[in-house]
Amino acid sequence: MQSNSLVVRKYGGSSLATTDHIVRVANQLSEICRDGTSVVVVVSAMGDTTDELIEMVSSITERPPGREYDALLSTGEIISSALLSMALQEKGINALSLTGAQAGIKTTAMFRDARIENIDTDRIIDRLPKGGCLIIAGFQGINEDQDTTTLGRGGSDTTAVALAAALSVGRCEIFTDVAGVFTSDPRICPRARSLIDISYDEMLEMATTGAKVMHPRAVEVGQDYGVEIHVRSTNHPNEPGTIIRKEAQMEKEKKARAVTHESNVAKITIRGLIDQPGIAASLFEPLAEAGVSVDTIVQNASEEGTTDLTFTVAPDLLVSAESVVTRMKTELLARDVVTNSDLGTVSVVGSGMTNSPGYAAQMFRTLTNAGVNIDMISTSDIRITCVVDRSDVNRSVIALNEAFELGITDE
Amino acid sequence: MQSNSLVVRKYGGSSLATTDHIVRVANQLSEICRDGTSVVVVVSAMGDTTDELIEMVSSITERPPGREYDALLSTGEIISSALLSMALQEKGINALSLTGAQAGIKTTAMFRDARIENIDTDRIIDRLPKGGCLIIAGFQGINEDQDTTTLGRGGSDTTAVALAAALSVGRCEIFTDVAGVFTSDPRICPRARSLIDISYDEMLEMATTGAKVMHPRAVEVGQDYGVEIHVRSTNHPNEPGTIIRKEAQMEKEKKARAVTHESNVAKITIRGLIDQPGIAASLFEPLAEAGVSVDTIVQNASEEGTTDLTFTVAPDLLVSAESVVTRMKTELLARDVVTNSDLGTVSVVGSGMTNSPGYAAQMFRTLTNAGVNIDMISTSDIRITCVVDRSDVNRSVIALNEAFELGITDE
Repeated sequence: MQSNSLVVRKYGGSSLATTDHIVRVANQLSEICRDGTSVVVVVSAMGDTTDELIEMVSSITERPPGREYDALLSTGEIISSALLSMALQEKGINALSLTGAQAGIKTTAMFRDARIENIDTDRIIDRLPKGGCLIIAGFQGINEDQDTTTLGRGGSDTTAVALAAALSVGRCEIFTDVAGVFTSDPRICPRARSLIDISYDEMLEMATTGAKVMHPRAVEVGQDYGVEIHVRSTNHPNEPGTIIRKEAQMEKEKKARAVTHESNVAKITIRGLIDQPGIAASLFEPLAEAGVSVDTIVQNASEEGTTDLTFTVAPDLLVSAESVVTRMKTELLARDVVTNSDLGTVSVVGSGMTNSPGYAAQMFRTLTNAGVNIDMISTSDIRITCVVDRSDVNRSVIALNEAFELGITDE
Repeated sequence: MQSNSLVVRKYGGSSLATTDHIVRVANQLSEICRDGTSVVVVVSAMGDTTDELIEMVSSITERPPGREYDALLSTGEIISSALLSMALQEKGINALSLTGAQAGIKTTAMFRDARIENIDTDRIIDRLPKGGCLIIAGFQGINEDQDTTTLGRGGSDTTAVALAAALSVGRCEIFTDVAGVFTSDPRICPRARSLIDISYDEMLEMATTGAKVMHPRAVEVGQDYGVEIHVRSTNHPNEPGTIIRKEAQMEKEKKARAVTHESNVAKITIRGLIDQPGIAASLFEPLAEAGVSVDTIVQNASEEGTTDLTFTVAPDLLVSAESVVTRMKTELLARDVVTNSDLGTVSVVGSGMTNSPGYAAQMFRTLTNAGVNIDMISTSDIRITCVVDRSDVNRSVIALNEAFELGITDE
């Protein structure tokens, strides 16, 4: 099958929120099928379905067994896939829905956070109607025991990109409720604009520093298998959207690409640690065992022979983290432990910033001029992140979007 | 496995209406498991789930394709099975949920009304926890193409009885929102009482003449495989309930067993038909092709050489039926066609009535004394049905329940 006669598309939950939405999506798909193109459509659960299912679980148990949790949650995507198939057939389009199991999506055994290991493309190609749609329930698969598994947050994006890879289709279209990947969150920064394209590496940095549009795992799969990910708006399908690919080709000259943020960050500082080999390991191992996922870590020598170590966590993990750290305090010979849960982060991302220290300086200057105090700094090759007061986050985003000329141009 | 260490139970949708209901059912089950008994639990969808799914379908299409319809509807039972398994595990009971497909329930290809052909009991026995519960989503299976199928109305009852048959368990418990099979509908006839037991044949006649408690197909499977069906109340598990079995053993002397009714019946009468061989076939074949299912048929010679033919249908089929009959009128050389959609039926059922014409006379006298006009009569070996005005149905049920001494005794 030629790749230009086969398209892989994913529609998110907000694009399928009601049966009216589903009919609109069917209209879009029927236009594509008209010239004989076949479409593999991956769907998320309708609107709030997944949240409603999770609410039922929480009224029964606080520790749902993973196997049953996944069996339950997988129904949301089965419902939307069957309804979309009906809506397409109502329009005279050949369509068929498949569960993850029926589509031969084999995963690891790990419930709630399974990884796709293999996709039985023969099954998919066999059942793919020419000039029609094969609708596959996203977010799910089966493990070796034939039990239903789910892929964790952003799972449907991952299903779609993995399907594009398995079917050797070079591109996967992700239809969502935003018009692409923006230079900043447009709800905070009205002058933010949608990017034409962006590299996998940049998108990964953006996703891990607060951009919600794509889950990092889906981007990683795209990167590993060379699948371009085209993020587009369901409501405005004529907008160009954003292509995530190996290298940004359209906007090469712009070295800073985007400003991301997180509004909910807490930090813990352990002061007066005796600076000796292995203290980081002896602290972060018990944290990992307690299920505390740590974001930024900064260590500074403070006074002679001692050091201050600070790390950030999501606020809902602060209590667990603090209890681990307090337990370790004596062992680590630390002076004291202080916490702050009123923080946020702003990050500037762009692969062109590599080896250009001027960007960091420009970021700090911009924040200082905006009256924002920088609490912590961490950097990667293509990202600079500052921890700031939560109340300063929005102001910082707007100022940085302007300073790095990421906004809508006036011409 | 000894049959006394394995129980097959089904819980209906009203018994699982909310997560609170599900937790209550888990409590009941955990009591049984405590002595090492294993339970195969078949579940319906929670409360109105199925109706909500059907409502979504009807906003998309009036002719839902069967395959997608079944894929959609099957999710209701998967949801309740997963939640019940969680509720049991929360109580420390070993539990596992299976979809119809995972339980190896193989059906015919016919969507929306598939028949169970085979159950892979090895799969079930392999996964059945000792002293625990295997929870199987009712109403569903898979066909040869691995597509999900559903079993039509009453499908979960059929799943449960078929599982009891396949597992060679002599009895299947059906937990529902009523305390058994009643002599009449207790909402109409407060003196109606629950029967201790009833034969398959009687139950089949009752089910086809208006008793909603059990679907005829489940009763047929019980009859074919010798599985006793014990209908019990979820809310009052200490009530004796009703056992459906080969022969009623506990109440043999009572020859009339129950009064059933339907409140919504329409009839079509074709008057002045030339009485010739084949007229019935030439009328009912096109009706069957138009999807009109006919209930009672009565034919009477009226004037010389002509006959009147009357049949009853569900009121929502009256328009289709009338258009077929009107089309056939000339061909059948009929004088005219009249319809009435304000009718109902009352039936007296009991295997002891065979060859006892006195029961029919008693029924007609009772209705006449109650001032009820009898419109049509039809009988089987163990049933007498009268078509009456809809407004007379409730009065007829009460009078017949009294006349045949089917009510609560005052002693």
